[in-house]
Amino acid sequence: MASDAPDACCQLALDPAVREDARRRLASVRGHVDGIIRMLEREDVYCVDVLKQVKAVEGALAKVGEGVLRSHLRNHVVSARERGDADVIVAELMEVLKYR
Amino acid sequence: MASDAPDACCQLALDPAVREDARRRLASVRGHVDGIIRMLEREDVYCVDVLKQVKAVEGALAKVGEGVLRSHLRNHVVSARERGDADVIVAELMEVLKYR
Amino acid sequence: MASDAPDACCQLALDPAVREDARRRLASVRGHVDGIIRMLEREDVYCVDVLKQVKAVEGALAKVGEGVLRSHLRNHVVSARERGDADVIVAELMEVLKYR
Amino acid sequence: MASDAPDACCQLALDPAVREDARRRLASVRGHVDGIIRMLEREDVYCVDVLKQVKAVEGALAKVGEGVLRSHLRNHVVSARERGDADVIVAELMEVLKYR
Repeated sequence: MASDAPDACCQLALDPAVREDARRRLASVRGHVDGIIRMLEREDVYCVDVLKQVKAVEGALAKVGEGVLRSHLRNHVVSARERGDADVIVAELMEVLKYR
Repeated sequence: MASDAPDACCQLALDPAVREDARRRLASVRGHVDGIIRMLEREDVYCVDVLKQVKAVEGALAKVGEGVLRSHLRNHVVSARERGDADVIVAELMEVLKYR
Repeated sequence: MASDAPDACCQLALDPAVREDARRRLASVRGHVDGIIRMLEREDVYCVDVLKQVKAVEGALAKVGEGVLRSHLRNHVVSARERGDADVIVAELMEVLKYR
Repeated sequence: MASDAPDACCQLALDPAVREDARRRLASVRGHVDGIIRMLEREDVYCVDVLKQVKAVEGALAKVGEGVLRSHLRNHVVSARERGDADVIVAELMEVLKYR
């Protein structure tokens, strides 16, 4: 059900409030990544300090994913049978949940 | 052995080539995050498309972490006993590897 | 919607074929765990050999989880709105997907 | 440095106390897996109850892995350069840490 799929009309769009929250969180992720890039410009940067910061960014990204997933389950997955697209919805969800 | 710890001298700094590779990869991560932020400005963005992009960024971050970890093991951990800081090195490594 | 919750009638039971597949896979996981227990009775067992076997068991468990999750999505989550239990279904699913 | 590699003498064996702790934890994992197998014999077993139990076993396995990893770092990895097997030790450790 990629957004370019013909029948992916606005009813399967990400909830506006969740979209804004994700956008805000990702703006902060970007700032955090900038911080690590600056850190890496120092010759004496210690490996574990970098690993800790990368892990913190991973945590922030997981929060973004969590919010979008919850919204998708609540707004689209629970009504997939009524809409008739349950197979596609389940298949793409299983794909995106692999190694999560 | 955080970089601000008094005895964290340059001998425990991240290898320059690995530092540059991590910096380059993170610059691309930042571009990718920018792309998702733009995606989230579209009212019709589909949840699973966002989840796929977040997962791709997580994969790119994991590559950064992998490179830094390998370098740390190779350049610092394997010689910790000789240096006398094995306990600190092991403790902070176990902390950063949790939920990896 | 734990199975002891009053309204968890048979319609939300795990699909019989998936149940049997999970049972069969877990019987093999148990045999694998027995193998590691025997391995640990050897004084010369090498740490990384144990880590590899633990990781293989984790992989087999992930397959069990994947099968049950797919079946749950397909048979219960996609029809939750019609049934009227969407909130509970989404909340417990988000809980079980954490750190997966 | 698999245990069948010629030079894997007892000095690289898993610490006896950690070996016993791992063995004890795995015996409990086996009991837990038996419990899920019994659960799966019930026709009305609910998917999410199975997912919760599988996740609990994954958590217990992670504890086994954590103990063995810490012991390996402390007893073998920190002295690898002195022993002269740093490259093998780092390569096999990176392999086992993938997707952990």
